[in-house]
Amino acid sequence: MIVVVCLNPALDVTHQLDTVGWGRVNRPRAVHARPGGKGLNVARTLHALGADVLVLGLAGGITGAGVEASLRELGVPAAFTPLTGETRRTFSVVDNGRVTAFHEPGPEVGAPEFAEFRVDYEKALAGAEAVVLSGSLPPGLPAGTYATLIQAAGVPAVLDTHGEALRRGAAAQPAIVKPNRAELEALTGRSLTTQEEVTAAAGELRGARAVVVTLGLEGLLAATGDGCWQARVPAVMAGNATGAGDAVAAALAHGIALGRPWDEQLRHAAALGAATAAASVAGEFRQQDYLDALRAVAVEEVR
Amino acid sequence: MIVVVCLNPALDVTHQLDTVGWGRVNRPRAVHARPGGKGLNVARTLHALGADVLVLGLAGGITGAGVEASLRELGVPAAFTPLTGETRRTFSVVDNGRVTAFHEPGPEVGAPEFAEFRVDYEKALAGAEAVVLSGSLPPGLPAGTYATLIQAAGVPAVLDTHGEALRRGAAAQPAIVKPNRAELEALTGRSLTTQEEVTAAAGELRGARAVVVTLGLEGLLAATGDGCWQARVPAVMAGNATGAGDAVAAALAHGIALGRPWDEQLRHAAALGAATAAASVAGEFRQQDYLDALRAVAVEEVR
Repeated sequence: MIVVVCLNPALDVTHQLDTVGWGRVNRPRAVHARPGGKGLNVARTLHALGADVLVLGLAGGITGAGVEASLRELGVPAAFTPLTGETRRTFSVVDNGRVTAFHEPGPEVGAPEFAEFRVDYEKALAGAEAVVLSGSLPPGLPAGTYATLIQAAGVPAVLDTHGEALRRGAAAQPAIVKPNRAELEALTGRSLTTQEEVTAAAGELRGARAVVVTLGLEGLLAATGDGCWQARVPAVMAGNATGAGDAVAAALAHGIALGRPWDEQLRHAAALGAATAAASVAGEFRQQDYLDALRAVAVEEVR
Repeated sequence: MIVVVCLNPALDVTHQLDTVGWGRVNRPRAVHARPGGKGLNVARTLHALGADVLVLGLAGGITGAGVEASLRELGVPAAFTPLTGETRRTFSVVDNGRVTAFHEPGPEVGAPEFAEFRVDYEKALAGAEAVVLSGSLPPGLPAGTYATLIQAAGVPAVLDTHGEALRRGAAAQPAIVKPNRAELEALTGRSLTTQEEVTAAAGELRGARAVVVTLGLEGLLAATGDGCWQARVPAVMAGNATGAGDAVAAALAHGIALGRPWDEQLRHAAALGAATAAASVAGEFRQQDYLDALRAVAVEEVR
C-alpha cells in the first residue's frame, strides 16, 4: 500500500462559460466539482495505475465532506482526520480558454487536531510500502511538519512541496524530493537554465537520497547517490504542468513500491507526466498516451 | 408556525478581493458561505422577527447538506426532502464594490421526489398559520407547481415568483402575490411607470386576493379587495433589492399570522424591506433600522 498525505485538500469547482460578463450574473453552461490539492491528484493517479492507495490528511466541514464524497465516487480510499475548520474550495472560471482561479485559504489546524492525525498516520504506515507527502501546509502547521512526518514514517518517503517545508523536509532524508525548476530556483536563489546548473542545485538540497527535478518540456533530471539521469519526453507534452508534476510524484512512489531500478523508474515517471500533461484535467491520463510516451521517453546518464 | 417553501435552494459563496486578476490565480481576503435562494432569505428574516418558522424544500448532495448545515448554524429549522441531484451553488466575486456572480443551474427534480415532498408539505401544513412559496422552480417541475401547492395548502399563501409560475400561481387564489415592478412588466408586456399603471397591472393578475408590488425606492403598492394602498419608504432605502423583496414577503406572511390589518401589514412590510435594503447581506437587517423605518413609512389609501 502507498499512503498519500494531503494535509490541505480542496474541493475544486470549475465553471465553464462562453464569455464572462464582469459585474453581472452569469449562468455557467457546465459545472464540475472534483477533489483537488496536489496530494489528491497523486492519489488519483496511483489509483488509475492500479496501485493500492490510501489517502490520509485533514478535512473539515461541509467542503471536507464534499472532498470525501467525491473521492468515494472515484473509488479512491481515504481516511481523513476530522478538522473543526472548513476545508478550502478553489473556484475556477473558464471562459474562452482563459482560466481565472480563486483559491480560498486552507483552514487553521490546531495542535490537538494534528496530534490526532499523527496517530492515524503511524497506524496506517504500519502496512505501507511508501508514503507520498504532497502540497502546501495548511495554516497553523510549522515548516518542519513534513520533516517530522518523514522521520516517523519508517518507509521510503516522496516529498513534493516548496520553500522552507521542502528544505527542512529534505534534511529529514526522504527517499525522493521532487521540486520543479521554479521551486529549486526559489530555494537556491539562482536562475537555473542549463542541465549543469540544475544538477548542481539539486546537489545542494541536502539530505534527500534522490532529487528528481521536473523540467516541463525538457523532462526530468534525477540526482541520486548512484548517479545522475535525464529523461527526455516526447514533444506532445504540453499544457497542464501541475497535474504532470503530481503524476511524476505518483510514478516515483509506485516505482519505489515495485522496486524498479532508477532508469526504469524515471522512464515511467516521465511518461506518466507527459501523458497527464496531455490530458485536460489534473490527475487524469489516457492509458494509450502513457504507453506511447513510455516508448518515446529517452533516459540517459549524465555527467 | 409559518412554513416557507424553497424548492430550489442554493449555497451562496462570496469571495471578497481588492482587485481580481483575470486569467490568473487570485487569493480572496475573505470567504463567506451562507444559505441562499429567495425562500431561505424569507425564512431567515422570519426567524429574526421571532416567528416560528419551518423551511421545506428539496435539497441534495454535498451542497444540499451544506445548506442544511448553515441553516442549523443560524438556528433556522428546516426539513428538506432529499434529492438525488446536487443542490446548486452561487459564487459571487466582489472586487472594489463590483459583484460578478456565477449561478449554477438547479438540480433536476424527478416526479417521485416531488411526490415525496408533497407528503412532507401536507404533513407540515397541518400545524401552520401561513405558507410562503418563494423563488424559481428547479428544472423538472412544471409551471403549475406553485398553483398545485397553493390549492393543497389549506392556509393563506404568499407567493413570490415570476413568469408563468406566477401567473398560474395567482390563479390558484393565494392570499398575496408579491411581484416586483420588473416581474409585473414582464407579465403584462407593458412598461409600468406611474402608480396608476402599476395599480391597473396588479388588477390584471387574476385570482390572488391581494397583489403587493415592490417598487424599490418608491416603496410598495397593494391592490386588495378592500382597496389600494401605497407605502412610501424613507430615502435611506438603497442597494440590495433582492434581499429587500424577500423581507417584504416575510413581513407579509408574518402580518397574516399575526392578523394585522392591511395598513399595519404594509407599514411593517415596507419598513422591513427598507431596513433589509440598508444591510449589506440579503436576509439580514438591524433591529434599529427596522424601528426607525417603521416610524418613517407613510401609508396612504390610493384611488
